[in-house]
Amino acid sequence: MSMRLKGNEVSQKILEDTAQILRQLHRASKLCIVRFGSDAADLSYQNSIIKKCDSVGVNVQVAAFGADITSADFMRRFRELNASPEIDGILVLRPIPKQIDADKMQDALCAKKDIDCIGNLGLGSVFVGDGKSFAPCTAQAVMEILKHYQVDLCGKHAVILGRSLVVSKPLAMMLLEQNATITICHSKTKNLCRITREADILISAIGHPKFVDSRYVNKDMVVIDVGINTDENGKICGDIDFDSVEPIVSSITPVPGGVGAVTTAILIRNTVLAASKST
Amino acid sequence: MSMRLKGNEVSQKILEDTAQILRQLHRASKLCIVRFGSDAADLSYQNSIIKKCDSVGVNVQVAAFGADITSADFMRRFRELNASPEIDGILVLRPIPKQIDADKMQDALCAKKDIDCIGNLGLGSVFVGDGKSFAPCTAQAVMEILKHYQVDLCGKHAVILGRSLVVSKPLAMMLLEQNATITICHSKTKNLCRITREADILISAIGHPKFVDSRYVNKDMVVIDVGINTDENGKICGDIDFDSVEPIVSSITPVPGGVGAVTTAILIRNTVLAASKST
Repeated sequence: MSMRLKGNEVSQKILEDTAQILRQLHRASKLCIVRFGSDAADLSYQNSIIKKCDSVGVNVQVAAFGADITSADFMRRFRELNASPEIDGILVLRPIPKQIDADKMQDALCAKKDIDCIGNLGLGSVFVGDGKSFAPCTAQAVMEILKHYQVDLCGKHAVILGRSLVVSKPLAMMLLEQNATITICHSKTKNLCRITREADILISAIGHPKFVDSRYVNKDMVVIDVGINTDENGKICGDIDFDSVEPIVSSITPVPGGVGAVTTAILIRNTVLAASKST
Repeated sequence: MSMRLKGNEVSQKILEDTAQILRQLHRASKLCIVRFGSDAADLSYQNSIIKKCDSVGVNVQVAAFGADITSADFMRRFRELNASPEIDGILVLRPIPKQIDADKMQDALCAKKDIDCIGNLGLGSVFVGDGKSFAPCTAQAVMEILKHYQVDLCGKHAVILGRSLVVSKPLAMMLLEQNATITICHSKTKNLCRITREADILISAIGHPKFVDSRYVNKDMVVIDVGINTDENGKICGDIDFDSVEPIVSSITPVPGGVGAVTTAILIRNTVLAASKST
Protein backbone atom coordinates (compact mmCIF):
# COMPACT_ATOMS: atom_id res chain seq x y z
CA MET A 1 0.00 0.00 0.00
CA SER A 2 1.60 3.20 -1.17
CA MET A 3 1.31 6.72 0.14
CA ARG A 4 -1.07 9.03 -1.69
CA LEU A 5 0.42 12.35 -2.74
CA LYS A 6 -2.71 14.46 -2.46
CA GLY A 7 -2.87 17.47 -4.72
CA ASN A 8 -5.65 19.08 -2.71
CA GLU A 9 -3.43 19.26 0.36
CA VAL A 10 -0.67 20.98 -1.65
CA SER A 11 -3.13 23.24 -3.42
CA GLN A 12 -4.70 24.39 -0.15
CA LYS A 13 -1.32 25.32 1.29
CA ILE A 14 -0.40 27.30 -1.84
CA LEU A 15 -3.71 29.16 -1.83
CA GLU A 16 -3.32 30.05 1.86
CA ASP A 17 0.17 31.40 1.21
CA THR A 18 -1.11 33.29 -1.83
CA ALA A 19 -3.95 34.93 0.15
CA GLN A 20 -1.33 36.02 2.69
CA ILE A 21 0.89 37.58 -0.02
CA LEU A 22 -2.15 39.33 -1.47
CA ARG A 23 -3.14 40.82 1.90
CA GLN A 24 0.33 42.27 2.28
CA LEU A 25 0.13 43.85 -1.17
CA HIS A 26 -2.68 46.22 -0.17
CA ARG A 27 -3.98 46.28 -3.72
CA ALA A 28 -6.26 44.19 -5.92
CA SER A 29 -4.86 41.52 -8.23
CA LYS A 30 -6.51 40.39 -11.43
CA LEU A 31 -6.20 37.33 -13.63
CA CYS A 32 -7.41 37.52 -17.22
CA ILE A 33 -8.58 34.29 -18.84
CA VAL A 34 -8.54 34.36 -22.64
CA ARG A 35 -10.98 31.84 -24.08
CA PHE A 36 -12.01 30.98 -27.63
CA GLY A 37 -15.45 29.50 -28.21
CA SER A 38 -17.40 27.64 -25.53
CA ASP A 39 -15.82 24.21 -25.26
CA ALA A 40 -17.22 22.34 -22.23
CA ALA A 41 -13.78 21.44 -20.87
CA ASP A 42 -12.65 25.06 -21.20
CA LEU A 43 -15.74 26.32 -19.37
CA SER A 44 -15.30 23.77 -16.61
CA TYR A 45 -11.61 24.70 -16.19
CA GLN A 46 -12.51 28.40 -16.25
CA ASN A 47 -15.12 27.94 -13.53
CA SER A 48 -12.76 26.02 -11.30
CA ILE A 49 -10.19 28.80 -11.67
CA ILE A 50 -12.78 31.47 -10.85
CA LYS A 51 -13.89 29.56 -7.76
CA LYS A 52 -10.35 29.26 -6.43
CA CYS A 53 -9.59 32.90 -7.28
CA ASP A 54 -12.68 33.91 -5.29
CA SER A 55 -11.48 31.93 -2.29
CA VAL A 56 -8.18 33.84 -2.33
CA GLY A 57 -9.56 37.25 -3.27
CA VAL A 58 -8.06 37.47 -6.76
CA ASN A 59 -10.28 39.12 -9.37
CA VAL A 60 -10.95 37.43 -12.69
CA GLN A 61 -11.75 38.93 -16.07
CA VAL A 62 -12.85 36.50 -18.76
CA ALA A 63 -12.04 37.67 -22.29
CA ALA A 64 -14.16 35.36 -24.42
CA PHE A 65 -13.76 35.39 -28.18
CA GLY A 66 -15.69 33.68 -30.93
CA ALA A 67 -13.82 30.66 -32.26
CA ASP A 68 -13.92 32.31 -35.71
CA ILE A 69 -12.40 35.68 -34.75
CA THR A 70 -9.72 36.89 -37.17
CA SER A 71 -6.12 36.99 -36.01
CA ALA A 72 -5.98 40.76 -36.57
CA ASP A 73 -9.12 41.44 -34.52
CA PHE A 74 -7.93 39.16 -31.77
CA MET A 75 -4.45 40.71 -31.64
CA ARG A 76 -5.92 44.21 -31.33
CA ARG A 77 -7.94 43.17 -28.28
CA PHE A 78 -5.12 41.00 -26.87
CA ARG A 79 -2.72 43.95 -26.96
CA GLU A 80 -5.24 46.03 -25.00
CA LEU A 81 -5.55 43.34 -22.33
CA ASN A 82 -1.78 43.01 -22.22
CA ALA A 83 -1.41 46.79 -21.74
CA SER A 84 -4.10 47.10 -19.06
CA PRO A 85 -2.51 48.11 -15.74
CA GLU A 86 -5.30 46.30 -13.87
CA ILE A 87 -4.42 42.89 -15.28
CA ASP A 88 -1.50 41.14 -13.59
CA GLY A 89 -1.52 37.83 -15.40
CA ILE A 90 -2.98 36.43 -18.62
CA LEU A 91 -3.91 32.79 -19.14
CA VAL A 92 -4.76 31.66 -22.67
CA LEU A 93 -6.87 28.49 -22.74
CA ARG A 94 -5.49 26.11 -25.34
CA PRO A 95 -5.72 24.81 -27.99
CA ILE A 96 -6.31 28.10 -29.77
CA PRO A 97 -8.10 28.33 -33.15
CA LYS A 98 -5.94 27.67 -36.20
CA GLN A 99 -6.36 31.12 -37.75
CA ILE A 100 -4.85 32.81 -34.68
CA ASP A 101 -1.12 33.50 -35.10
CA ALA A 102 0.22 31.79 -31.98
CA ASP A 103 3.75 33.16 -32.43
CA LYS A 104 2.43 36.70 -32.69
CA MET A 105 0.31 36.23 -29.59
CA GLN A 106 3.19 34.79 -27.59
CA ASP A 107 5.56 37.53 -28.68
CA ALA A 108 3.01 40.21 -27.80
CA LEU A 109 2.43 38.88 -24.29
CA CYS A 110 4.46 40.86 -21.78
CA ALA A 111 6.88 38.49 -19.98
CA LYS A 112 5.76 39.77 -16.56
CA LYS A 113 2.16 38.77 -17.28
CA ASP A 114 3.07 35.45 -18.87
CA ILE A 115 2.02 33.45 -15.81
CA ASP A 116 1.84 30.12 -17.66
CA CYS A 117 5.05 30.63 -19.65
CA ILE A 118 3.84 30.45 -23.24
CA GLY A 119 6.41 32.90 -24.65
CA ASN A 120 9.92 32.07 -25.86
CA LEU A 121 11.49 34.55 -23.45
CA GLY A 122 9.92 32.78 -20.48
CA LEU A 123 10.76 29.35 -21.86
CA GLY A 124 14.32 30.52 -22.48
CA SER A 125 14.52 31.59 -18.87
CA VAL A 126 13.34 28.15 -17.67
CA PHE A 127 15.91 26.54 -19.96
CA VAL A 128 18.67 28.77 -18.61
CA GLY A 129 17.42 28.29 -15.06
CA ASP A 130 17.80 31.95 -14.12
CA GLY A 131 14.50 32.10 -12.23
CA LYS A 132 13.51 35.32 -14.00
CA SER A 133 10.22 34.04 -15.44
CA PHE A 134 7.33 31.88 -14.32
CA ALA A 135 7.62 28.27 -15.46
CA PRO A 136 4.62 26.53 -17.05
CA CYS A 137 2.09 25.96 -14.24
CA THR A 138 1.78 22.18 -14.61
CA ALA A 139 5.54 21.69 -14.46
CA GLN A 140 5.62 23.92 -11.38
CA ALA A 141 2.78 21.90 -9.89
CA VAL A 142 4.81 18.70 -10.12
CA MET A 143 7.79 20.37 -8.43
CA GLU A 144 5.51 21.74 -5.72
CA ILE A 145 4.09 18.27 -4.96
CA LEU A 146 7.60 16.79 -4.72
CA LYS A 147 8.62 19.64 -2.42
CA HIS A 148 5.52 19.45 -0.23
CA TYR A 149 6.00 15.72 0.34
CA GLN A 150 9.73 16.24 0.87
CA VAL A 151 10.82 13.92 -1.91
CA ASP A 152 14.62 14.12 -2.02
CA LEU A 153 15.71 14.97 -5.58
CA CYS A 154 19.47 15.34 -5.27
CA GLY A 155 21.19 12.62 -7.31
CA LYS A 156 17.90 10.79 -7.84
CA HIS A 157 16.96 9.52 -11.27
CA ALA A 158 13.76 11.12 -12.55
CA VAL A 159 12.32 9.58 -15.70
CA ILE A 160 9.78 11.66 -17.58
CA LEU A 161 7.39 10.17 -20.14
CA GLY A 162 6.52 12.71 -22.81
CA ARG A 163 8.50 15.56 -24.35
CA SER A 164 6.01 18.42 -24.51
CA LEU A 165 7.02 22.03 -24.12
CA VAL A 166 4.07 22.57 -21.78
CA VAL A 167 5.16 20.01 -19.18
CA SER A 168 8.00 17.59 -19.83
CA LYS A 169 10.82 19.76 -21.16
CA PRO A 170 10.50 22.55 -18.57
CA LEU A 171 10.00 19.96 -15.83
CA ALA A 172 13.22 18.22 -16.86
CA MET A 173 15.08 21.52 -16.56
CA MET A 174 13.58 22.24 -13.13
CA LEU A 175 14.46 18.77 -11.84
CA LEU A 176 17.99 19.24 -13.16
CA GLU A 177 18.25 22.51 -11.22
CA GLN A 178 17.45 20.48 -8.11
CA ASN A 179 20.31 18.09 -8.90
CA ALA A 180 18.21 15.19 -10.18
CA THR A 181 19.47 13.04 -13.04
CA ILE A 182 16.84 13.28 -15.76
CA THR A 183 15.70 11.06 -18.61
CA ILE A 184 13.09 12.05 -21.19
CA CYS A 185 11.29 9.15 -22.90
CA HIS A 186 8.64 9.32 -25.61
CA SER A 187 6.78 7.37 -28.26
CA LYS A 188 10.00 6.46 -30.09
CA THR A 189 11.85 5.22 -27.00
CA LYS A 190 12.98 1.61 -27.18
CA ASN A 191 12.97 -0.70 -24.12
CA LEU A 192 10.74 1.74 -22.27
CA CYS A 193 9.92 -0.60 -19.35
CA ARG A 194 13.60 -1.28 -18.75
CA ILE A 195 14.37 2.44 -18.54
CA THR A 196 11.43 3.40 -16.33
CA ARG A 197 12.00 0.51 -13.91
CA GLU A 198 15.40 2.03 -13.03
CA ALA A 199 13.84 5.35 -12.00
CA ASP A 200 13.56 6.72 -8.48
CA ILE A 201 10.86 9.11 -9.66
CA LEU A 202 8.57 8.42 -12.62
CA ILE A 203 6.52 11.24 -14.11
CA SER A 204 4.08 10.57 -16.92
CA ALA A 205 2.74 13.34 -19.15
CA ILE A 206 1.74 11.58 -22.35
CA GLY A 207 -2.06 11.68 -22.30
CA HIS A 208 -2.61 7.93 -22.81
CA PRO A 209 -5.20 6.50 -20.41
CA LYS A 210 -3.71 3.90 -18.02
CA PHE A 211 -0.61 3.42 -20.20
CA VAL A 212 1.82 2.81 -17.33
CA ASP A 213 1.12 -0.50 -15.61
CA SER A 214 2.95 -2.72 -13.11
CA ARG A 215 5.68 -3.62 -15.63
CA TYR A 216 6.99 -0.04 -15.62
CA VAL A 217 7.55 0.49 -11.90
CA ASN A 218 9.53 -0.60 -8.87
CA LYS A 219 8.70 -0.74 -5.18
CA ASP A 220 10.70 2.33 -4.11
CA MET A 221 9.33 4.56 -6.82
CA VAL A 222 7.59 7.92 -6.46
CA VAL A 223 5.02 8.14 -9.27
CA ILE A 224 3.58 11.43 -10.51
CA ASP A 225 0.69 11.28 -12.97
CA VAL A 226 0.25 14.42 -15.08
CA GLY A 227 -2.23 12.83 -17.51
CA ILE A 228 -5.89 13.77 -17.45
CA ASN A 229 -7.71 11.34 -19.74
CA THR A 230 -11.05 9.61 -20.07
CA ASP A 231 -11.18 5.82 -19.72
CA GLU A 232 -13.38 3.36 -21.63
CA ASN A 233 -16.27 4.06 -19.24
CA GLY A 234 -16.02 7.83 -19.67
CA LYS A 235 -14.38 8.23 -16.26
CA ILE A 236 -11.49 10.61 -15.65
CA CYS A 237 -8.18 8.75 -15.33
CA GLY A 238 -4.47 9.41 -15.58
CA ASP A 239 -1.62 7.95 -17.64
CA ILE A 240 -0.97 5.52 -14.82
CA ASP A 241 -3.02 2.34 -14.40
CA PHE A 242 -3.60 3.28 -10.77
CA ASP A 243 -5.10 -0.02 -9.60
CA SER A 244 -2.17 -2.05 -10.88
CA VAL A 245 0.61 0.40 -9.94
CA GLU A 246 -0.54 1.74 -6.58
CA PRO A 247 -0.03 -1.52 -4.62
CA ILE A 248 3.59 -1.74 -5.78
CA VAL A 249 5.15 1.72 -5.56
CA SER A 250 6.24 3.85 -2.62
CA SER A 251 3.98 6.84 -3.33
CA ILE A 252 1.69 8.05 -6.10
CA THR A 253 -0.53 10.98 -7.11
CA PRO A 254 -4.17 10.09 -7.83
CA VAL A 255 -6.15 11.37 -10.84
CA PRO A 256 -8.27 13.37 -10.21
CA GLY A 257 -6.99 15.05 -7.06
CA GLY A 258 -3.31 15.04 -7.98
CA VAL A 259 -1.29 17.35 -10.21
CA GLY A 260 -4.34 19.00 -11.79
CA ALA A 261 -5.53 20.27 -8.44
CA VAL A 262 -2.20 22.01 -7.87
CA THR A 263 -1.86 23.57 -11.33
CA THR A 264 -4.71 26.04 -10.76
CA ALA A 265 -3.29 27.06 -7.39
CA ILE A 266 0.08 27.77 -9.03
CA LEU A 267 -1.66 29.86 -11.68
CA ILE A 268 -3.26 32.01 -9.01
CA ARG A 269 -0.04 32.30 -7.02
CA ASN A 270 1.81 33.41 -10.17
CA THR A 271 -0.84 36.09 -10.76
CA VAL A 272 -0.37 37.48 -7.26
CA LEU A 273 3.42 37.24 -7.56
CA ALA A 274 3.20 39.15 -10.86
CA ALA A 275 1.14 41.78 -9.04
CA SER A 276 3.72 41.98 -6.26
CA LYS A 277 6.50 42.52 -8.81
CA SER A 278 4.67 45.36 -10.52
CA THR A 279 3.88 47.14 -7.24
CA MET B 1 39.26 -1.74 -32.64
CA SER B 2 36.64 0.97 -32.95
CA MET B 3 35.93 3.39 -35.75
CA ARG B 4 37.36 6.89 -35.39
CA LEU B 5 34.83 9.67 -35.91
CA LYS B 6 37.18 12.25 -37.37
CA GLY B 7 36.25 15.86 -36.79
CA ASN B 8 38.53 17.12 -39.54
CA GLU B 9 36.61 15.15 -42.15
CA VAL B 10 33.31 16.67 -40.97
CA SER B 11 34.81 20.13 -40.66
CA GLN B 12 36.19 20.05 -44.18
CA LYS B 13 32.81 19.11 -45.62
CA ILE B 14 31.10 21.94 -43.72
CA LEU B 15 33.68 24.49 -44.86
CA GLU B 16 33.32 23.39 -48.50
CA ASP B 17 29.54 23.75 -48.26
CA THR B 18 29.96 27.13 -46.57
CA ALA B 19 32.28 28.44 -49.30
CA GLN B 20 29.66 27.37 -51.82
CA ILE B 21 26.87 29.25 -50.00
CA LEU B 22 29.12 32.31 -49.76
CA ARG B 23 29.87 32.29 -53.50
CA GLN B 24 26.16 32.25 -54.25
CA LEU B 25 25.60 35.24 -51.96
CA HIS B 26 27.63 37.61 -54.16
CA ARG B 27 28.58 39.72 -51.17
CA ALA B 28 31.20 39.68 -48.42
CA SER B 29 30.50 38.09 -45.05
CA LYS B 30 32.17 39.14 -41.83
CA LEU B 31 32.63 37.52 -38.43
CA CYS B 32 33.45 39.73 -35.45
CA ILE B 33 35.43 38.14 -32.61
CA VAL B 34 35.07 39.94 -29.29
CA ARG B 35 38.05 39.26 -27.04
CA PHE B 36 39.04 40.52 -23.60
CA GLY B 37 42.73 40.60 -22.64
CA SER B 38 45.34 38.40 -24.32
CA ASP B 39 44.92 34.94 -22.85
CA ALA B 40 47.04 32.43 -24.78
CA ALA B 41 44.16 29.99 -25.29
CA ASP B 42 41.94 32.81 -26.59
CA LEU B 43 44.62 33.95 -29.03
CA SER B 44 45.20 30.42 -30.24
CA TYR B 45 41.44 29.86 -30.75
CA GLN B 46 41.17 33.24 -32.48
CA ASN B 47 43.99 32.40 -34.88
CA SER B 48 42.53 29.03 -35.78
CA ILE B 49 39.20 30.73 -36.55
CA ILE B 50 40.89 33.38 -38.70
CA LYS B 51 42.79 30.69 -40.63
CA LYS B 52 39.61 28.74 -41.38
CA CYS B 53 37.70 31.93 -42.25
CA ASP B 54 40.48 32.80 -44.72
CA SER B 55 40.17 29.40 -46.36
CA VAL B 56 36.45 29.98 -46.97
CA GLY B 57 36.66 33.68 -47.79
CA VAL B 58 34.90 35.02 -44.71
CA ASN B 59 36.30 38.29 -43.34
CA VAL B 60 37.19 38.62 -39.68
CA GLN B 61 37.23 41.68 -37.46
CA VAL B 62 38.80 41.24 -34.04
CA ALA B 63 37.41 43.60 -31.41
CA ALA B 64 39.98 43.31 -28.62
CA PHE B 65 39.29 44.99 -25.27
CA GLY B 66 41.44 45.42 -22.20
CA ALA B 67 40.46 42.94 -19.49
CA ASP B 68 39.80 45.91 -17.21
CA ILE B 69 37.41 47.82 -19.50
CA THR B 70 34.31 49.14 -17.71
CA SER B 71 30.96 47.57 -18.52
CA ALA B 72 29.62 50.93 -19.76
CA ASP B 73 32.55 51.53 -22.11
CA PHE B 74 32.33 47.98 -23.42
CA MET B 75 28.57 48.15 -23.97
CA ARG B 76 28.92 51.38 -25.95
CA ARG B 77 31.39 49.72 -28.33
CA PHE B 78 29.49 46.40 -28.37
CA ARG B 79 26.30 48.16 -29.46
CA GLU B 80 28.20 49.76 -32.36
CA LEU B 81 29.51 46.37 -33.49
CA ASN B 82 26.04 44.90 -33.16
CA ALA B 83 24.58 47.70 -35.29
CA SER B 84 27.25 47.54 -38.00
CA PRO B 85 25.70 46.35 -41.28
CA GLU B 86 29.05 44.83 -42.31
CA ILE B 87 29.14 42.37 -39.41
CA ASP B 88 27.03 39.24 -39.88
CA GLY B 89 27.90 37.33 -36.74
CA ILE B 90 29.47 38.11 -33.37
CA LEU B 91 31.42 35.59 -31.30
CA VAL B 92 32.32 36.54 -27.73
CA LEU B 93 35.28 34.59 -26.35
CA ARG B 94 34.51 33.41 -22.85
CA PRO B 95 34.92 33.62 -19.95
CA ILE B 96 34.33 37.37 -19.94
CA PRO B 97 35.71 39.66 -17.19
CA LYS B 98 33.62 39.87 -14.02
CA GLN B 99 32.85 43.58 -14.27
CA ILE B 100 31.12 43.10 -17.66
CA ASP B 101 27.35 42.74 -17.31
CA ALA B 102 26.84 39.45 -19.18
CA ASP B 103 23.03 39.74 -19.14
CA LYS B 104 23.18 43.21 -20.64
CA MET B 105 25.57 42.04 -23.34
CA GLN B 106 23.43 39.03 -24.22
CA ASP B 107 20.26 41.09 -24.34
CA ALA B 108 21.94 43.69 -26.55
CA LEU B 109 23.15 41.13 -29.07
CA CYS B 110 20.82 40.97 -32.05
CA ALA B 111 19.37 37.45 -32.36
CA LYS B 112 20.30 37.27 -36.06
CA LYS B 113 23.99 37.86 -35.23
CA ASP B 114 24.01 35.55 -32.22
CA ILE B 115 25.84 32.80 -34.08
CA ASP B 116 26.90 30.96 -30.90
CA CYS B 117 23.53 31.30 -29.13
CA ILE B 118 24.47 33.18 -25.99
CA GLY B 119 21.19 35.12 -25.67
CA ASN B 120 18.02 33.92 -23.94
CA LEU B 121 15.95 34.37 -27.10
CA GLY B 122 18.20 31.98 -29.01
CA LEU B 123 18.36 29.52 -26.15
CA GLY B 124 14.56 29.71 -25.85
CA SER B 125 14.32 28.86 -29.52
CA VAL B 126 16.58 25.80 -29.09
CA PHE B 127 14.45 24.74 -26.11
CA VAL B 128 11.25 25.13 -28.12
CA GLY B 129 12.86 23.45 -31.13
CA ASP B 130 11.46 25.94 -33.63
CA GLY B 131 14.71 26.22 -35.61
CA LYS B 132 14.52 30.02 -35.63
CA SER B 133 17.93 30.61 -34.03
CA PHE B 134 21.42 29.18 -34.25
CA ALA B 135 22.14 26.62 -31.53
CA PRO B 136 25.41 26.82 -29.56
CA CYS B 137 28.19 25.83 -31.97
CA THR B 138 29.62 22.96 -29.91
CA ALA B 139 26.19 21.33 -29.52
CA GLN B 140 25.68 21.72 -33.27
CA ALA B 141 29.13 20.22 -33.88
CA VAL B 142 28.15 17.05 -32.01
CA MET B 143 24.95 16.74 -34.04
CA GLU B 144 26.90 17.30 -37.23
CA ILE B 145 29.37 14.50 -36.44
CA LEU B 146 26.51 12.10 -35.67
CA LYS B 147 24.84 13.09 -38.94
CA HIS B 148 28.02 12.84 -41.02
CA TYR B 149 28.74 9.34 -39.76
CA GLN B 150 25.07 8.38 -40.19
CA VAL B 151 24.53 7.42 -36.55
CA ASP B 152 20.86 6.48 -36.26
CA LEU B 153 19.30 8.50 -33.44
CA CYS B 154 15.64 7.51 -33.60
CA GLY B 155 14.69 5.67 -30.42
CA LYS B 156 18.32 5.42 -29.34
CA HIS B 157 19.32 6.24 -25.79
CA ALA B 158 21.78 9.14 -25.66
CA VAL B 159 23.37 9.76 -22.26
CA ILE B 160 25.01 13.14 -21.77
CA LEU B 161 27.54 13.82 -19.00
CA GLY B 162 27.37 17.44 -17.89
CA ARG B 163 24.51 19.92 -17.71
CA SER B 164 25.98 23.14 -19.10
CA LEU B 165 23.96 25.65 -21.05
CA VAL B 166 26.77 25.90 -23.58
CA VAL B 167 26.71 22.25 -24.61
CA SER B 168 24.70 19.66 -22.69
CA LYS B 169 21.26 21.21 -22.31
CA PRO B 170 20.92 22.43 -25.92
CA LEU B 171 22.40 19.17 -27.17
CA ALA B 172 19.79 17.21 -25.20
CA MET B 173 17.03 19.24 -26.85
CA MET B 174 18.50 18.71 -30.33
CA LEU B 175 18.83 14.95 -29.79
CA LEU B 176 15.23 14.87 -28.56
CA GLU B 177 14.14 16.62 -31.77
CA GLN B 178 15.76 13.72 -33.65
CA ASN B 179 13.71 11.23 -31.60
CA ALA B 180 16.49 10.06 -29.29
CA THR B 181 15.72 9.20 -25.67
CA ILE B 182 17.95 11.49 -23.58
CA THR B 183 19.49 11.31 -20.13
CA ILE B 184 21.47 14.13 -18.51
CA CYS B 185 23.92 13.06 -15.79
CA HIS B 186 26.18 15.29 -13.68
CA SER B 187 28.34 15.46 -10.59
CA LYS B 188 25.42 14.57 -8.30
CA THR B 189 24.28 11.54 -10.32
CA LYS B 190 24.30 8.27 -8.38
CA ASN B 191 25.26 4.95 -10.01
CA LEU B 192 26.76 6.80 -12.96
CA CYS B 193 28.48 3.75 -14.50
CA ARG B 194 25.25 1.78 -14.41
CA ILE B 195 23.40 4.52 -16.27
CA THR B 196 26.07 5.20 -18.90
CA ARG B 197 26.59 1.49 -19.65
CA GLU B 198 22.97 1.32 -20.87
CA ALA B 199 23.53 4.07 -23.45
CA ASP B 200 23.63 3.66 -27.21
CA ILE B 201 25.38 7.01 -27.50
CA LEU B 202 27.54 8.51 -24.74
CA ILE B 203 28.50 12.17 -24.90
CA SER B 204 30.80 13.67 -22.30
CA ALA B 205 31.04 17.43 -21.71
CA ILE B 206 32.29 17.74 -18.15
CA GLY B 207 35.87 18.98 -18.54
CA HIS B 208 37.50 16.27 -16.39
CA PRO B 209 40.59 14.76 -18.04
CA LYS B 210 40.15 11.04 -18.81
CA PHE B 211 37.17 10.71 -16.44
CA VAL B 212 35.29 8.12 -18.49
CA ASP B 213 37.09 4.78 -18.51
CA SER B 214 36.23 1.23 -19.55
CA ARG B 215 33.72 0.80 -16.69
CA TYR B 216 31.38 3.37 -18.26
CA VAL B 217 30.98 1.91 -21.75
CA ASN B 218 29.67 -1.02 -23.76
CA LYS B 219 30.78 -2.61 -27.00
CA ASP B 220 28.02 -1.16 -29.22
CA MET B 221 28.44 2.38 -27.98
CA VAL B 222 29.08 5.54 -30.01
CA VAL B 223 31.25 7.80 -27.84
CA ILE B 224 31.52 11.57 -28.39
CA ASP B 225 34.10 13.47 -26.38
CA VAL B 226 33.40 17.19 -26.00
CA GLY B 227 36.04 17.77 -23.30
CA ILE B 228 39.25 19.63 -24.08
CA ASN B 229 41.53 19.24 -21.06
CA THR B 230 45.21 18.99 -20.23
CA ASP B 231 46.51 15.71 -18.80
CA GLU B 232 49.22 15.22 -16.14
CA ASN B 233 51.92 15.59 -18.80
CA GLY B 234 50.51 18.84 -20.14
CA LYS B 235 49.09 17.09 -23.21
CA ILE B 236 45.65 17.90 -24.64
CA CYS B 237 43.12 15.19 -23.78
CA GLY B 238 39.37 14.72 -23.60
CA ASP B 239 36.95 13.59 -20.87
CA ILE B 240 37.30 10.05 -22.19
CA ASP B 241 40.25 7.85 -21.24
CA PHE B 242 40.81 7.12 -24.91
CA ASP B 243 43.33 4.29 -24.52
CA SER B 244 41.06 2.30 -22.23
CA VAL B 245 37.75 3.04 -23.99
CA GLU B 246 38.70 2.95 -27.66
CA PRO B 247 39.36 -0.83 -27.84
CA ILE B 248 35.89 -1.58 -26.42
CA VAL B 249 33.36 0.71 -28.10
CA SER B 250 31.91 0.78 -31.60
CA SER B 251 33.08 4.29 -32.53
CA ILE B 252 34.67 7.29 -30.84
CA THR B 253 35.82 10.87 -31.49
CA PRO B 254 39.48 11.58 -30.73
CA VAL B 255 40.74 14.65 -28.83
CA PRO B 256 42.20 16.66 -30.48
CA GLY B 257 40.71 16.21 -33.93
CA GLY B 258 37.14 15.49 -32.83
CA VAL B 259 34.34 17.84 -31.78
CA GLY B 260 36.61 20.88 -31.39
CA ALA B 261 37.62 20.76 -35.05
CA VAL B 262 33.97 20.89 -36.09
CA THR B 263 32.90 23.71 -33.73
CA THR B 264 34.90 26.34 -35.61
CA ALA B 265 33.50 25.20 -38.95
CA ILE B 266 29.95 25.52 -37.57
CA LEU B 267 30.76 29.02 -36.34
CA ILE B 268 31.82 30.06 -39.82
CA ARG B 269 28.83 28.39 -41.46
CA ASN B 270 26.51 30.22 -39.05
CA THR B 271 28.16 33.53 -39.98
CA VAL B 272 27.55 32.92 -43.67
CA LEU B 273 24.00 31.71 -43.01
CA ALA B 274 23.39 34.89 -40.99
CA ALA B 275 24.67 36.86 -43.98
CA SER B 276 22.38 34.96 -46.33
CA LYS B 277 19.38 35.74 -44.11
CA SER B 278 20.13 39.45 -44.06
CA THR B 279 20.57 39.63 -47.83
